[in-house]
Amino acid sequence: MKVLIIGAAGMVGRKLTGALLSQGRVGSRDISQLTLADVVPPEFGAGTTPVNAQSFDLSAPGAAARLVGERPDVIFHLAAIVSGEAEADFEKGYRINLDGTRHLLEAIRLESATEPYCPRLVFTSSIAVFGEPLPADIPDEFPLTPLTSYGTQKAIGELLLADYSRRGFVDGIGIRLPTIVVRPGKPNKAASGFFSGIIREPLAGMEAVLPVSTSVRHWFASPRAAVSFLLHAATLDTTSLGQRRSLTMPGLAATVGDEIEALRRMAGDKAAAFIRHEPDPVISRIVAGWPQGFVARRAEQLGFVAETSFDEIIRAHIEDELGGSLG
Amino acid sequence: MKVLIIGAAGMVGRKLTGALLSQGRVGSRDISQLTLADVVPPEFGAGTTPVNAQSFDLSAPGAAARLVGERPDVIFHLAAIVSGEAEADFEKGYRINLDGTRHLLEAIRLESATEPYCPRLVFTSSIAVFGEPLPADIPDEFPLTPLTSYGTQKAIGELLLADYSRRGFVDGIGIRLPTIVVRPGKPNKAASGFFSGIIREPLAGMEAVLPVSTSVRHWFASPRAAVSFLLHAATLDTTSLGQRRSLTMPGLAATVGDEIEALRRMAGDKAAAFIRHEPDPVISRIVAGWPQGFVARRAEQLGFVAETSFDEIIRAHIEDELGGSLG
Repeated sequence: MKVLIIGAAGMVGRKLTGALLSQGRVGSRDISQLTLADVVPPEFGAGTTPVNAQSFDLSAPGAAARLVGERPDVIFHLAAIVSGEAEADFEKGYRINLDGTRHLLEAIRLESATEPYCPRLVFTSSIAVFGEPLPADIPDEFPLTPLTSYGTQKAIGELLLADYSRRGFVDGIGIRLPTIVVRPGKPNKAASGFFSGIIREPLAGMEAVLPVSTSVRHWFASPRAAVSFLLHAATLDTTSLGQRRSLTMPGLAATVGDEIEALRRMAGDKAAAFIRHEPDPVISRIVAGWPQGFVARRAEQLGFVAETSFDEIIRAHIEDELGGSLG
Repeated sequence: MKVLIIGAAGMVGRKLTGALLSQGRVGSRDISQLTLADVVPPEFGAGTTPVNAQSFDLSAPGAAARLVGERPDVIFHLAAIVSGEAEADFEKGYRINLDGTRHLLEAIRLESATEPYCPRLVFTSSIAVFGEPLPADIPDEFPLTPLTSYGTQKAIGELLLADYSRRGFVDGIGIRLPTIVVRPGKPNKAASGFFSGIIREPLAGMEAVLPVSTSVRHWFASPRAAVSFLLHAATLDTTSLGQRRSLTMPGLAATVGDEIEALRRMAGDKAAAFIRHEPDPVISRIVAGWPQGFVARRAEQLGFVAETSFDEIIRAHIEDELGGSLG
């Protein structure tokens, strides 16, 4: 089968690429061709699967049609302008996150004009489709009331995915990812960055700043869980989804205090001592509007599995990023 | 103040035009200019308010900018490809109902680039944003899961309206209209047409076909109520809406049996005898997926008022369309 990853150069895209190349298959079907597309040509490791990496502008007319013309059986659409940038650059956010998604859907629809074509499309949505007032644990059937342009664009993507799937143009599934921790790499300026930073930096013997209260509760899964969601979504029997094509992924509802206690258990008081509490009212206010937790029953019943403790999330980071032990 | 109606040639648009010309004002402010736009130049009655009627293609680039360049203070956006046509012609539905709405919002946003501009935009949404499984009475906070392309396009319009309002580009309010009865004019082929037909035709001494069971329950308001919703939405203090800019309008939950009993009370057994029951499995199946009723608490608390009995709805039809009495 042919597989296409749009947005393959991002953190989740790189990990998905790695998993596909190491398995050589999706479900029970061998991958004959893996195409990696992103603004910059994605990098990838060695393997036996033929890989075609290319630079690609999702907002350019015709660009999606060129990729879709290869008739991939499974398309992972991970490309997006992230929350902060979509808020800062209104036009760019709509151009990539809304128009880009629509170009892709239209390219798929028009590709079927010559001969039947209905690929599986796995679309990464986000818990940013939800906005306050929110219950502490958000059920599967809850209105989408995004409070950012990014969340609005993702919610519109979910609606389009459902309509194009209902019409038989695509076999779509949208997965709303939890906040992914522990993100590897350098600290970034995302408002959510500290959730990873207070684990990642102490494990590397570096100081991390905590800008919010330890009572802040949020919804998490590891990068490894995120990849498992994508792979499961690529092979799931979508008839069980009915018309509701987007799912809140399972995750772990945990407080910052829970994070710190898990770090202490895994790496001792010395690691936890690297966390410096420096309250930031701006970040605290942003984070206060975020979802605290979900009851992701539909996704669980469909076989999606996430971590059930922060210890597991830290262990995944140690195994996948730090060579398996705390050197 | 300047007022613009987009989609002024439709049934609700014509009635809104009539109300504005007869009042000469919106709320307490006199109308200095009324612009009527539609695919065909809208007709209008005589009056003292200056009227500018023009033909207009909402999907044509630049067309919205031309209308918005006049800097109307209130814009009523009623234009849409209706449900059946948006389902039959996928591209046309998206071009008018999604791209058209976006062109309008973008024209408004870009108009403020030169000097501040933030008009009130009243957007007519629809109860078609909801799709089964649905409770018998749908609360204000219920997920939008449209099962038609039309409903999808309206739900996307609501999301865009909220985001553009949140960003301060427009002062938007979306109103989800109930099914409007009694529609004046000739029978049409809409699946919902019989709800009006079984009142309108018997009152005119003509036979009407009822294709569904008398136990079918649905959500109604008169054309007169629809105009009152639009006018109230144009003057409402939108700060009370918070981020949730779209509202389910109040209406009357009634069965087809309730309709027929009201007809009997208003016009006698002879009128009711003009209804011929001829079950149509296709229409019955379509209608079975529609909302049966709502609890429109938010809109009621904000002062929107609909009829509370089918007798009132029939009386509005007799007064507004039949000269006030059953000749």
